[in-house]
Amino acid sequence: MNAPDAVPPSASRLPAELRAELSALLGDRFTLSASVRTQHGKDESYHPSVPPDGVAFARSTEEVAAIVKACARHHVPVIPFGTGTSLEGHVAALRGGVTIDLSQMNRILAVHEGDLDVQIEAGVTRKQLNAHLRDLGLFFPIDPGADASLGGMAATRASGTNAVRYGTMRENVLGLTVVLSDGSVIRTGGRARKSAAGYDLTRVFVGSEGTLGVITEVTLRLYGIPQAISAAVTPFPTIEAAVNTVIETIQSGIPVARIELLDEVQLDAVNRYAKLDYAVQPTLFFEFHGTEAGVAEQVEMVKAIASGHGGGEFRWATQAEDRNKLWQARHNAYYAALALRPGAKGMATDVCVPISRLADCVSETKRDIEENGVLAPIVGHVGDGNFHLTCIFDPADRAETAKIEALNGRLVRRALAMGGTCTGEHGVGYGKIDFVEAEHGPAVEAMRRLKRAFDPDNIMNPGKILRI
Amino acid sequence: MNAPDAVPPSASRLPAELRAELSALLGDRFTLSASVRTQHGKDESYHPSVPPDGVAFARSTEEVAAIVKACARHHVPVIPFGTGTSLEGHVAALRGGVTIDLSQMNRILAVHEGDLDVQIEAGVTRKQLNAHLRDLGLFFPIDPGADASLGGMAATRASGTNAVRYGTMRENVLGLTVVLSDGSVIRTGGRARKSAAGYDLTRVFVGSEGTLGVITEVTLRLYGIPQAISAAVTPFPTIEAAVNTVIETIQSGIPVARIELLDEVQLDAVNRYAKLDYAVQPTLFFEFHGTEAGVAEQVEMVKAIASGHGGGEFRWATQAEDRNKLWQARHNAYYAALALRPGAKGMATDVCVPISRLADCVSETKRDIEENGVLAPIVGHVGDGNFHLTCIFDPADRAETAKIEALNGRLVRRALAMGGTCTGEHGVGYGKIDFVEAEHGPAVEAMRRLKRAFDPDNIMNPGKILRI
Repeated sequence: MNAPDAVPPSASRLPAELRAELSALLGDRFTLSASVRTQHGKDESYHPSVPPDGVAFARSTEEVAAIVKACARHHVPVIPFGTGTSLEGHVAALRGGVTIDLSQMNRILAVHEGDLDVQIEAGVTRKQLNAHLRDLGLFFPIDPGADASLGGMAATRASGTNAVRYGTMRENVLGLTVVLSDGSVIRTGGRARKSAAGYDLTRVFVGSEGTLGVITEVTLRLYGIPQAISAAVTPFPTIEAAVNTVIETIQSGIPVARIELLDEVQLDAVNRYAKLDYAVQPTLFFEFHGTEAGVAEQVEMVKAIASGHGGGEFRWATQAEDRNKLWQARHNAYYAALALRPGAKGMATDVCVPISRLADCVSETKRDIEENGVLAPIVGHVGDGNFHLTCIFDPADRAETAKIEALNGRLVRRALAMGGTCTGEHGVGYGKIDFVEAEHGPAVEAMRRLKRAFDPDNIMNPGKILRI
Repeated sequence: MNAPDAVPPSASRLPAELRAELSALLGDRFTLSASVRTQHGKDESYHPSVPPDGVAFARSTEEVAAIVKACARHHVPVIPFGTGTSLEGHVAALRGGVTIDLSQMNRILAVHEGDLDVQIEAGVTRKQLNAHLRDLGLFFPIDPGADASLGGMAATRASGTNAVRYGTMRENVLGLTVVLSDGSVIRTGGRARKSAAGYDLTRVFVGSEGTLGVITEVTLRLYGIPQAISAAVTPFPTIEAAVNTVIETIQSGIPVARIELLDEVQLDAVNRYAKLDYAVQPTLFFEFHGTEAGVAEQVEMVKAIASGHGGGEFRWATQAEDRNKLWQARHNAYYAALALRPGAKGMATDVCVPISRLADCVSETKRDIEENGVLAPIVGHVGDGNFHLTCIFDPADRAETAKIEALNGRLVRRALAMGGTCTGEHGVGYGKIDFVEAEHGPAVEAMRRLKRAFDPDNIMNPGKILRI
């Protein structure tokens, strides 16, 4: 769908001189293998693989710089690759070129406990980081579900379940090391908590999806593991009741750490997939962080709000093990949805609206799904006004595919009409490239100026975010 | 100091055709008056006035666009002006041109209570906004002390006393309307709490000090007025004891709303200026926000930490009136410092370091001040690792001026060596333009790319942030 401006992969398209240079630089860490190329042309979405012409496994910023410099000399595209867990075709090599796999750049460079920050290489994954931090009593909260690389999470401005309390990658990246399109290396930001010293280059690159440069190192804010953590699951009679509970909780300023919605279709899928026995109703998953007394107070306030909207019993998970099970069930929502129809694919799409419009947007979308007979469970980071559909379909079936595409288009237009955005967290890739124009209007031309300033030859992940 | 690349003001330098166009557009809201020009060439700092060649008072985004378009056609510089409360010569018309005064663009366009956001024109000041919001139970927390315009605060990436809890303008601007250097108008961001839809243009313009475009409207995050607010003042035996209390408080994750340091010199100045009787010792001013129980819990934790560092009694202000007095005393620190030596000027400079280095940075700076016999009270938003010196001096005295400049240079180099930034919140203007290079190295060239992309003719507040 959204048929990419693609060319067939062909290793021989890479200039022989470039192949020789990259082989000399990387040895067998530069490969033309078809299977490696195919794997690197594909993310976790329904978008088909568009393999690059070669894959380079980098081990340092200097190597990335050398690779980009070589590619730039030959006007060959460069596509950064972390874990391949993106959802809008971000890693597809639409115009061929060399994919730079950063997964071997996985060193944790420096933890500054006293300053609550950490410097890492871009290939470190969030689970790896949190495993490293646990004994220090620290954690990094941003959790998009997948065990994504933190470089990739920065590049896509990821967020996820904890964003309602801790913000997104936008708020939690203090600085970056970036290889620019000419192979030069810059460091943006710094370790001070705030700075007014010049343009905010860090946030120019956060969310730029590899189209302005390759992120090779990241400095992140950390947080102390809260004294008390408690999680609960609560069913509601209707999806409106659940969403109105969310809206009232947010408007009351209660600092919930997570507040997730699963509609009854998604809940049923999760039950089947994980062999759980939650009531098959629209359901909220909550998590509370704070001191013992603070968590108790938050819980009382939220229980009162939920009960006012007809919410059922809170099923608690206070032990770490039980909480992990609960959140694993939530994180597996996508796979659980896929399992509803074996062999089918899922189109995971997300929008985000101002919280006051969330009930309208979710209800209208649910009606739209039902009226069109689509299988599309709803799940959302609703505290931010962000929700997802996983449309289950067979990409080989043209009529069904068209129906899904139309549903997605109506979802985005509905969100935009409500003052929202075409993607709260998945990013644009090439799957949502047309919607960026609809959302930003004349500002897209300003985005093009930015793109041209940093990538005048359009070799950095071309065909993503903007039509150039 | 840092002698600007300035030209003498002369209204006749404006092309006659441009003068005619602006007069036709604005009537007597376009003026060549010498006094108005002089006033608009100067901010609250020691930097001398560098008047523009004309001043245009705009009343709408369309008027700003028309002014910029006209100036662009004649290659005449444009300088945006809010309240003139900047501190590094941000509004000086270093290369002449037309200053656009936005103070008449002071309409509050829409308050969305349910979404906790507000859309305003750039000339609305923070006190005006908070007066408007009070009856709704909402407030906008960013408070740099001065009653600055919110457009100006966005343009300088302002922060202030509440930033330790609520973040800076970087975290609290949801979207902007910006007039670009060719007079085109874009809207950046939106009202959704998060978005991954394209480049973060909002944060390109936040902190850009008018060098990339003129901000004409701002959408801001709001917060509910906390159920309980409590403020207290506590003296410490040494500045190290006070700073170590701050470090331990932050490292413990206690969500204090404000935590401000005044050294004994500043405290003495505040006592004299506001006729108060605080003990003349290094002192912390605290504010706590939350539920009644939450505030009580925070207070107990902070008291225990302070007492461990030899902190004295907490003097409380729980009534709004008492708190206002307390914070007014803190906000008047600059004027109080100036009053220590009548007729002298103040150079207000600020740096920000990782919190673990704050005690070192403050102590070394204090020693430096004493060794050099300078009058320079220290005050700081220490929860962020940010502190200020107000160097009191006579700009006509060359030797004294040189001594102050050297002190400032050593302060910045000390902060940079500790992983900090040359300005946590005042911004660059032209006063700190040389330090940006020292701090960011090769990234400055990337900033120049950004500048050239948005302002190829260098007409937008030229001579600020970067040497072009």
